[in-house]
Amino acid sequence: MSEVIIKNDEVDIVIGALQSDLTPFLEAWRPFISDFHLIIVKDPDLKEELKIPGGFNLHVYTKSDIDKVVGSSTSGISFSGYACRYFGYLVSRKRYIISVDDDCLPAKNSKGELTDPVSQHIINLSTPATPFFFNTLYDPFCEGADFVRGYPFSLRTGVECGLSCGLWLNLADLDAPTQALKPSLRNTRYVDAVLTVPTRAMLPVSGINIAFNTELVGPALTPAFRLAKEGNLRWETVEDIWTGMCVKVICDHLRLGVKSGLPYVSRQERGNAIESLKKEWEGVKLMEEVVPFFQSLRLSETSVTPEDCVAEIAAAVKERLGPVSPTFAGAAGTMVEWIKLWKRVRAQ
Amino acid sequence: MSEVIIKNDEVDIVIGALQSDLTPFLEAWRPFISDFHLIIVKDPDLKEELKIPGGFNLHVYTKSDIDKVVGSSTSGISFSGYACRYFGYLVSRKRYIISVDDDCLPAKNSKGELTDPVSQHIINLSTPATPFFFNTLYDPFCEGADFVRGYPFSLRTGVECGLSCGLWLNLADLDAPTQALKPSLRNTRYVDAVLTVPTRAMLPVSGINIAFNTELVGPALTPAFRLAKEGNLRWETVEDIWTGMCVKVICDHLRLGVKSGLPYVSRQERGNAIESLKKEWEGVKLMEEVVPFFQSLRLSETSVTPEDCVAEIAAAVKERLGPVSPTFAGAAGTMVEWIKLWKRVRAQ
Repeated sequence: MSEVIIKNDEVDIVIGALQSDLTPFLEAWRPFISDFHLIIVKDPDLKEELKIPGGFNLHVYTKSDIDKVVGSSTSGISFSGYACRYFGYLVSRKRYIISVDDDCLPAKNSKGELTDPVSQHIINLSTPATPFFFNTLYDPFCEGADFVRGYPFSLRTGVECGLSCGLWLNLADLDAPTQALKPSLRNTRYVDAVLTVPTRAMLPVSGINIAFNTELVGPALTPAFRLAKEGNLRWETVEDIWTGMCVKVICDHLRLGVKSGLPYVSRQERGNAIESLKKEWEGVKLMEEVVPFFQSLRLSETSVTPEDCVAEIAAAVKERLGPVSPTFAGAAGTMVEWIKLWKRVRAQ
Repeated sequence: MSEVIIKNDEVDIVIGALQSDLTPFLEAWRPFISDFHLIIVKDPDLKEELKIPGGFNLHVYTKSDIDKVVGSSTSGISFSGYACRYFGYLVSRKRYIISVDDDCLPAKNSKGELTDPVSQHIINLSTPATPFFFNTLYDPFCEGADFVRGYPFSLRTGVECGLSCGLWLNLADLDAPTQALKPSLRNTRYVDAVLTVPTRAMLPVSGINIAFNTELVGPALTPAFRLAKEGNLRWETVEDIWTGMCVKVICDHLRLGVKSGLPYVSRQERGNAIESLKKEWEGVKLMEEVVPFFQSLRLSETSVTPEDCVAEIAAAVKERLGPVSPTFAGAAGTMVEWIKLWKRVRAQ
C-alpha cells in the first residue's frame, strides 16, 4: 500500500468519562483535539453531572442513550466502567477512532517538548505496516528512517495498519501484583520509536491510548471479556488485552498490521494497588489460558471480513475455553451479540 | 532462566581489521575495552602492517595463522574482507564474543553522553530474552522496566539470549540502492530500547555491532554466504544477514532469544554508494529467495545442538536453494565444512 491521507473529519476521538470533571483533561488536550470531533461516553455508573469546558465539537452519550440504542435485547453487554468507551466505538460513523483514558495527559519527549499524540496516531494509521519482516531501525516510514540492508524489496510496500498502540509514561500499565510489589516504579523511559509487531507474535494491547481503523478491525473491539469482580481501575481489568488479541489475530489473518510505540501519554496516579490485590486475581490467572489460545488460533479462509473473524473467534472461545471458566463462556456470547449489534447500528 | 553473571575474562572482543591504522579506533574504544581480551584478525587481503597502540591485552591473527589453522583442506572458506572476523570467532575460547566493525565508534545517547556498548551487550546477553510474547514496554529486564499488565506470569522467566544485535547512528546500514537514492540520509534517532525479536519473526541481522553466546549459537556464525563479486563495503555484502537468519532459526528451534536495539555505535563514512551500485545487485536479488526460505524452515526434533542445526540448515539450503544460484550451493557446502572445522578447532 502507499501512504493514505487522513482528514480530520474522518476521525472521532472517543473518551470514556469515568470521572465527572473533565476540565483539566480536556484543557490539557485542547491544542491537539480542538480540530476533531469528540465522542464522550459517560460511565453509566457515574452519578455526578459531567463538567465539560466550552469550545469543543463534541457529542456526549449517557446511560439513556445507551439504553435507547442497545435496548434490552443485548443484556449480556455491559458498558460500565472502562467499557463505556465501546459504546462510542459503536455509534461513531468515522473511519478512524482515537481513544485515550481520561486520566492521561499528552506526554513530553526526552527533550522536554510536549508531543502531539493525535497526529502521531494518525501517522501510524496512515503509513504502511511491515508485519512480515522486522526492520531493525524500527518503522521505516518514520521521518529519517528507511529499510535496512537485507530487507527484501518485495516486502517494502507493506500493508495497511489496523491498530496503533500508544504507550504511557509515569504510571506504567502494570498489573496489580507488580505495582504492589514495586509501588514506586514509574516509567520514565521515552522510547522514540514505532514498530510493527511481527505477524503471529502476540502482545498485550492496553486500551489506555490506542487508535484504529474501524473498517478494518472495528468490530473486534468489544467489551466482551468482563471479570466477575471487575473494578474501574485499569489493573482490575483485562478487557482491552482480550480485545487486542482478537485484533491481532484478525490482522494476521487479513494481512494487516498492528503498530506499537509512539505516541506516549502521561498517566496520572489513580487507585491503590494494594487494595486491588485484595480482590481475586482472576484476570492474571485467566491470561495463562488466553495467551496460548490466541497464539494457536488460526482462522479459516472463509472468514474474510472482521465481522466473520470475530464470529469465528467467538465460536472457538466457546468450544475451547468455555469449559474452563464462565468468564470465557460469557465473552464468547457477548462477542456474538456484539457483532449483531454492530451490524444493526452501523446499518442505520 | 535467571540473570547470569558474565565475568570480563569470559568475553573476547573480536575485531576484523580492514584498515591498517587501528589507532583512532582503539583509542576511542579504550575506556570500554581495556579490561577485556581482544582478538584482532587482519584481513588477509590487507597488505600494510597493522598499527596498534599499546596498553591492550590482545592477540593479532594474520594470513599465516589462518593458513596454519585452516589449512588447504577447507578451501571453500574465505576469510577475506569482512569475513576475516569469523576466524576470530573460530579460535576464541571464550563463552561470549562481542564484534564490532573497525569503522565504528562508541555512540552518544540523546543527552549527548558517551555510551558503553560493551557493557550494554553484556547486559543483553546476561538477562533473559522473552521471545514468546511481546512486552510493549520493551525489555522487561532493563532498569526501571517490568512486564506490563496482561503478560502471563508463566512466560516471565524468559529464556537465554543467544544473540544481541546492536544498532548504528550516522551512516545507517542501508543497501547500496537505498543509500544511493538518498545520499544524505543519516540515522540520528537514538532509540533507547532493547527488545526481544518474537519467535518465528525474521530480521536482517547486521554484523556491524553484535555479541553472542558461542556455546548457544557460535557455530551458526559462518562466512558461508559469499557473493560472486563481494566487495569490502558493508552494502556489498550480505554474509551477516544470512548468518543472522541461521542464528534466528536456531534460536527459535532451541527456545533461545535474539535481542535487538541498544547499544548503538556511530558509523563513519566509507565508500561511495553510487560506485557500489555499478556492481551487480546480486545480494539484493537473492534476499527475495533467502527470506521466504528461512521463514518457512522448521528444524527437526533430532537437531539438539547448534552444530546439528547448522548441518540441517545446510542440507535444506542445498536441496531447496542450491538449484536457484551457485551462491546458495556454495553457502551450503561452506556451512558443512565450517561445522567440521569448528569441531576440529574447538576440540584442540
